[in-house]
Amino acid sequence: MERITIIKVGGKIVEEQETLQQLLMDFFNVVGAKILVHGGGRLATKIAEQLGIESRMVEGRRLTDENMLRVVTMVYAGLINKKIVAGLQALGINAVGLTGADMNVMRSAKRPFQTIDYGFAGDVKDVNTEALYLLLQNGYVPVLSPLTHDKKGLLLNTNADTIAAETAKALAKIFDVTLIYCFEKNGVLMNENDDMSVIPLLNHDLYLKYKQEGIIQGGMIPKLDNAFQAIAAGVKQVIITKASAINKSEGTIVFN
Amino acid sequence: MERITIIKVGGKIVEEQETLQQLLMDFFNVVGAKILVHGGGRLATKIAEQLGIESRMVEGRRLTDENMLRVVTMVYAGLINKKIVAGLQALGINAVGLTGADMNVMRSAKRPFQTIDYGFAGDVKDVNTEALYLLLQNGYVPVLSPLTHDKKGLLLNTNADTIAAETAKALAKIFDVTLIYCFEKNGVLMNENDDMSVIPLLNHDLYLKYKQEGIIQGGMIPKLDNAFQAIAAGVKQVIITKASAINKSEGTIVFN
Repeated sequence: MERITIIKVGGKIVEEQETLQQLLMDFFNVVGAKILVHGGGRLATKIAEQLGIESRMVEGRRLTDENMLRVVTMVYAGLINKKIVAGLQALGINAVGLTGADMNVMRSAKRPFQTIDYGFAGDVKDVNTEALYLLLQNGYVPVLSPLTHDKKGLLLNTNADTIAAETAKALAKIFDVTLIYCFEKNGVLMNENDDMSVIPLLNHDLYLKYKQEGIIQGGMIPKLDNAFQAIAAGVKQVIITKASAINKSEGTIVFN
Repeated sequence: MERITIIKVGGKIVEEQETLQQLLMDFFNVVGAKILVHGGGRLATKIAEQLGIESRMVEGRRLTDENMLRVVTMVYAGLINKKIVAGLQALGINAVGLTGADMNVMRSAKRPFQTIDYGFAGDVKDVNTEALYLLLQNGYVPVLSPLTHDKKGLLLNTNADTIAAETAKALAKIFDVTLIYCFEKNGVLMNENDDMSVIPLLNHDLYLKYKQEGIIQGGMIPKLDNAFQAIAAGVKQVIITKASAINKSEGTIVFN
């Protein structure tokens, strides 16, 4: 089976020129087929503020009203995505920036109103594996922004971690997939104040134990839930690490 | 030779919900392979204003400084392009939105500073015919936004009429190309105050005559120069008409 590496990077890394340039170089050095998934929430918040639009978050998730949907569409699909694509093209990587609407790559459904109205937020329903495969087999490198569509004309805001996990799960049917989640820390930590306390290997039993003991908590939990769901769906391994370490054997390897 | 229709629509049509919806339906009804090219200058001006950025124009062309480049990247590649793509997907057209950076579809060079510094404006150098052909042959419908790149990492603002003409010229090698420029009037007019005075057929000799007599003037001249250059490069015909008439035998047909 051919290998593919799917790398998800957060907003912070892609929003600053210096860290972005380093990321593009590191991504360039990843061998074989690859896909980049990016966030951009901090820049969306900044641009929204400049436009007089308030950002509202619940449990780390953005409430996306109509005005905010316009902002995230501009910032994610426009500003950030195209800056990455142009930067990769300069390195000779034939990148193509996509939202879920482009080539119908990722269809979602507007999240139903239960206790919280997230507005124009989408829960992923289908990934168009054929479209991604066509691009990959012809040497193109998809750069995915965190927007999906409902195939009824609506664009929907979708968490970038979820975009990466769903892409990984769909491609696991035809590739040997490694999914790398980049964030600010070296990996999943035993002690969140000690960046050297990386847990090198984490299987599901150990995860449940650490969660129960309160060692793993907060924003790490949805990230690891995403990771274990991806593993359960056939993704070979999930690595959680710093963006600068994507070509090094560092960080936390999540496996079954 | 297989036929393809390349349709360029201006900002006004795609910026208003009602005219956009009509355009998408009309575009849906175009038979065979097709490409949509869109503008969006009016919305860029509006968003720039909301961000406190002044729009400066010289002879109808935008001066694109660094801040304005960020705005047009957001508005053209993000807001407008993705709205069109999602709208076409809802109609069952498998659209894919692209800037010139995506798949290296259109490479340009930053316009040299002569009498006017246009800033981040790009003059087209190459069109990646293979990339467009791959998409078209697999049933995808490209939706091109008026941005190109220099393949050194810079995105550049490029006139949508030019994007359409360059795409038409490049595809003329492998397709029988019809290029349709949509604008507010019914066609090229004998009398600009009489929307019924459409010139049905316009060849180059007649164009030169009408230009000399002052019948054709102003913004119509660069549009027709683009059209005749496309014809000279092998494009079968160029039609200048209203967006609502793209499936009717109306407007001005420009030919050799």
